[in-house]
Amino acid sequence: MDLHDIALPIQDHLPVFNRVFREALRSKVGLVELITKYIVRQKGKKVRPILVLLSADVCGTVNEKSYRGATLVEILHTATLVHDDVVDNADTRRGLASINAVWKNKIAVLMGDYLLSRGLLLSLENDDVAFLKITSTAVRRMSEGELHQIQRSRKLDMDEPAYLRIIGDKTASLLSTCCEIGATSTSGNPEHHRLLREYGELVGLAFQIRDDILDYTGRKSITGKPTGLDISEKKLTLPLVHALARATAGERKQVLGMIRSGGKKVNVRHIVTFVEEHGGITYALERAREFAQSAKQRLETLPDSPSRRSLLAFADFVVEREK
Amino acid sequence: MDLHDIALPIQDHLPVFNRVFREALRSKVGLVELITKYIVRQKGKKVRPILVLLSADVCGTVNEKSYRGATLVEILHTATLVHDDVVDNADTRRGLASINAVWKNKIAVLMGDYLLSRGLLLSLENDDVAFLKITSTAVRRMSEGELHQIQRSRKLDMDEPAYLRIIGDKTASLLSTCCEIGATSTSGNPEHHRLLREYGELVGLAFQIRDDILDYTGRKSITGKPTGLDISEKKLTLPLVHALARATAGERKQVLGMIRSGGKKVNVRHIVTFVEEHGGITYALERAREFAQSAKQRLETLPDSPSRRSLLAFADFVVEREK
Repeated sequence: MDLHDIALPIQDHLPVFNRVFREALRSKVGLVELITKYIVRQKGKKVRPILVLLSADVCGTVNEKSYRGATLVEILHTATLVHDDVVDNADTRRGLASINAVWKNKIAVLMGDYLLSRGLLLSLENDDVAFLKITSTAVRRMSEGELHQIQRSRKLDMDEPAYLRIIGDKTASLLSTCCEIGATSTSGNPEHHRLLREYGELVGLAFQIRDDILDYTGRKSITGKPTGLDISEKKLTLPLVHALARATAGERKQVLGMIRSGGKKVNVRHIVTFVEEHGGITYALERAREFAQSAKQRLETLPDSPSRRSLLAFADFVVEREK
Repeated sequence: MDLHDIALPIQDHLPVFNRVFREALRSKVGLVELITKYIVRQKGKKVRPILVLLSADVCGTVNEKSYRGATLVEILHTATLVHDDVVDNADTRRGLASINAVWKNKIAVLMGDYLLSRGLLLSLENDDVAFLKITSTAVRRMSEGELHQIQRSRKLDMDEPAYLRIIGDKTASLLSTCCEIGATSTSGNPEHHRLLREYGELVGLAFQIRDDILDYTGRKSITGKPTGLDISEKKLTLPLVHALARATAGERKQVLGMIRSGGKKVNVRHIVTFVEEHGGITYALERAREFAQSAKQRLETLPDSPSRRSLLAFADFVVEREK
């Protein structure tokens, strides 16, 4: 199953979501309208709205609140991407030129702020205060998680518990938010909220571990990213963390020394082999599968439905994907 | 009266505000704590918290809600500054190195996001939903106003109504928010909320017009900014807008042509003289004084108190200041 198949059960809701999303961003300022239309044209994979709608459908009947929840997370995600592209000086996004490339940094940052304020207002105007609590906790975790990772990278100091906490904060928190918001929009049962929140968190962990594995094993022609990007950015992810824990003190010193010196001194091929030889890839994949399995267990008590089957398939999809 | 005198009536509340502000930003991540402490050391003039607390004191008794309101606007303002410095590649802020200069852009942007999420959570955790509605409307107006100004600058297309709308959005909205939040924190009377909101909006207009006048008349040794910075950024502000409206078609064409070509072709001295000769400075100053006067009228029905006198003095201060 790919993402298209996974989205089938809530397919008919996507055009309504698109309309609510577009409406929420309306502005009387021409430049804002122009950039908003451009963002709509960039259209991403819509993983987050799809998760909101599937979770909503699993726990009840998709309604206006579900569309607004999907819009809130998509707006938030879009704002983050616009700001990210500024920081990374990225020229393209989703196959089109990035906002900062077309309109300059100043406009891109303002546009990001505008998007955030519209997301907030959409929720406030509709008294979706519960959504906001869930979402702002995720924003805090995401920024704190990224900053925590930077701090650890500088010291090259990472173990498995710290790694799991960081990826929980920076990645799993938003997927968890999507699923919890979806459940909240259609069910008043706190048990539903908890199950979907935990499903999202666990799927998020599996997703990020797979992402970190692909940094070692992925082909640039498929993933679009060069192998070993994390290594060159001094990010110690699970495959390497595990390999380092199993290596001799001498090997550890040599590998960390190479990463620390950075630049051309880093032999990516050498480090990938080191990780493979110490079972880092195999171990990380096992852990990802375990998290996906735990995620699926969270859905066991919920009634069978096409949307539930899609969420089960999504848990497998994130671990087995090649890009 | 300077800002120090204006703050005297709420002087004793500032240490409590500082504590609430500091508490709201606590983090378990060392790097976040480090940067937060640095931000606290940078300490600004605290105009916004002072306005919140004065407005609160004018309408009732300063309380926990008032401190949280002051914290929310100061956090929001700080986040904006951190992001601004990234966009402008600024090296310093308040006499210390900027966050981006010390820790790089990526960390500065994440820190801005972290600050925003903490501001949000502070309000949500305390059910200050009214604060959030007021504030997110201001954030929308601020970003939309800035984008509107950029759009107009590109076309060199500006008249007084558009100018007033833009400065209302980009500047007056946040001062208005401060005063309305303050009033909301201590009074349940919607009339109080309206009066303080309008006072803040009008003072904000006067403030920005004075700022724009100083761009023509200010001395760099006092303002810290070179004369004519707006002209070189193609920003048409009230003194110039008024002068252009009173000039002949030929003069208008010549001045706009010079501004459009930009760079070394812009003779700032020439444009300043043009504006002065057509009464642009005098007119803008009159308008600023009118707005300050209207602001003060909004406070007429409120009982006399040291804080009320400070708000009256603040309206004069923003128009007469030299920096």
